[in-house]
Amino acid sequence: MGAATLQTATAQDFESYRDYFEPLPALPPIPANNSLTPEKIELGKMLFFEPRISASGVISCASCHNPALGWADRIPLAVGHEGQVGERNTPTVLNSGFLEAQFWDGREPDLEGQALGPIEADVEMAMDLGDALKELAKFDEYVERFAEAFPEKDEPLEADSVAQALASFQRTLNTPNSPFDRYLRGDNQAMSEQQKRGMVAFVNSGCIACHRGPNMTDSRFHRFELPGSTDEGRYVITGEERDRFAFRTPTLRNVAVTYPYFNNGSVDNLHDAVQLMGEQMLGRKLEEDAVDDIVAFLHAMTGEMPQVTFPALP
Amino acid sequence: MGAATLQTATAQDFESYRDYFEPLPALPPIPANNSLTPEKIELGKMLFFEPRISASGVISCASCHNPALGWADRIPLAVGHEGQVGERNTPTVLNSGFLEAQFWDGREPDLEGQALGPIEADVEMAMDLGDALKELAKFDEYVERFAEAFPEKDEPLEADSVAQALASFQRTLNTPNSPFDRYLRGDNQAMSEQQKRGMVAFVNSGCIACHRGPNMTDSRFHRFELPGSTDEGRYVITGEERDRFAFRTPTLRNVAVTYPYFNNGSVDNLHDAVQLMGEQMLGRKLEEDAVDDIVAFLHAMTGEMPQVTFPALP
Repeated sequence: MGAATLQTATAQDFESYRDYFEPLPALPPIPANNSLTPEKIELGKMLFFEPRISASGVISCASCHNPALGWADRIPLAVGHEGQVGERNTPTVLNSGFLEAQFWDGREPDLEGQALGPIEADVEMAMDLGDALKELAKFDEYVERFAEAFPEKDEPLEADSVAQALASFQRTLNTPNSPFDRYLRGDNQAMSEQQKRGMVAFVNSGCIACHRGPNMTDSRFHRFELPGSTDEGRYVITGEERDRFAFRTPTLRNVAVTYPYFNNGSVDNLHDAVQLMGEQMLGRKLEEDAVDDIVAFLHAMTGEMPQVTFPALP
Repeated sequence: MGAATLQTATAQDFESYRDYFEPLPALPPIPANNSLTPEKIELGKMLFFEPRISASGVISCASCHNPALGWADRIPLAVGHEGQVGERNTPTVLNSGFLEAQFWDGREPDLEGQALGPIEADVEMAMDLGDALKELAKFDEYVERFAEAFPEKDEPLEADSVAQALASFQRTLNTPNSPFDRYLRGDNQAMSEQQKRGMVAFVNSGCIACHRGPNMTDSRFHRFELPGSTDEGRYVITGEERDRFAFRTPTLRNVAVTYPYFNNGSVDNLHDAVQLMGEQMLGRKLEEDAVDDIVAFLHAMTGEMPQVTFPALP
């Protein structure tokens, strides 16, 4: 009887914490000027897996945003053209449509703005965009698919179309129905007691100040001294002092399967990542039990992965 | 009436050519010492997509044997570690379990023998095999899956297990039910008239001498002077004069989606490939109509692609 009362009390206690969070919607916001059509999604999927729009002919978006590895790469720093090592850790594309700023430094506001950068970046796919378009235009199937996806355009196979198709595909790469989401929808059994304690610690410690909203990020920029990192972050883009060493808050969704962590990928486990965040962002050393509970809670944010089969490229 | 008689006559005429061919079985031969279990197939699939057994951490078997590109790469020469360009064109792994000799030079007899070479090759994945095993052993899930796949072994996570699992997965990558196969099974409508004429030309011209059996290859070695190629082929392995410039007959299954062709990938279309083969192997210039018909026939050999979803790697 005593135990039952305690359980009930605890369940009610947890209940009030639900209100701090939002479950992940099935789709992110869709821009009014890029309707999410099946034609664009399928074309975008083909382009996402297309290595012939890279200088080497072997690197595609999926090389770093690898669907087998949480749509990221699970190495500290991205490796691209001719094995060059980039300066930052590859962010997952999962749920990236929910972000209000793209890239670690937020230099693009949306997926359309983000899509073309890696094709041209010297250390990524290293291909001139004009050359990439010419490469695609060699294939009748691409010419037809661009025409079908962008019937309103006089010249459908152009750079913006590539960006719009890639953005459309990526808006479908969402991971609903995690234990955390099921819990938020009312299923009290969906998270363990430790995960619920982690949820409470997450709120009470202040993590929720930045990691909030459906994608568990405010999409804003926060300064942060990462041991070993000299990356000046958003300052490189804005030149404003307040942005020095500032990075966009990363999503916590699927964080258990998108290690390693931080802009230089230098932390390979959630325990150390949570501890470091406590010290750096909350200004205090979280108790060991709280860290363990928060890590358990973060594991509840692994959702259903998109079941993607390979496209048949021309 | 006359037309009907002619059609009947033609159909009967084609009928007799069926006997030169064999439809693709659902599975290739399975070696007695590597039972094809679901555990091995799933583990092999994970290993096939696993980039962390490469020195860079980003190259897997699937990088060159890309499921989106006919399980090959559609570039002339393979590109591997740090963008190095290899010496030969990537062969498809589709139906490779039917081959009686692996690699262009046949230096390994079976898939188990083939599997480990690319992991260690400097221009491919460039990782010491011992290091690759250590990398896998870091993950509890791999330790468990090797134990489940090889319960008879005292130390399941070892090199032979990697080879056996990869070979098992690859034995499932077959492409049955092509129009050609459906025709061989009795469906007269499965191939067009031009494809049937191509079948006749294929037999009568002598292509069938080497491209025969269920995988349309004799798995044997034939000398061949490919313009621009200095690759000595099987001679490099055997040192025997008769093997100089000799290569294993490639499969013709899915040949329409596994361009470019030949050991250096220098021919990018079937028309030129068929013409060159006529000149080099049959010693004569095939008539233009015959070339076109044979190309149409080869298109009938594109089968059903394996529907593979990405594994979730640890």
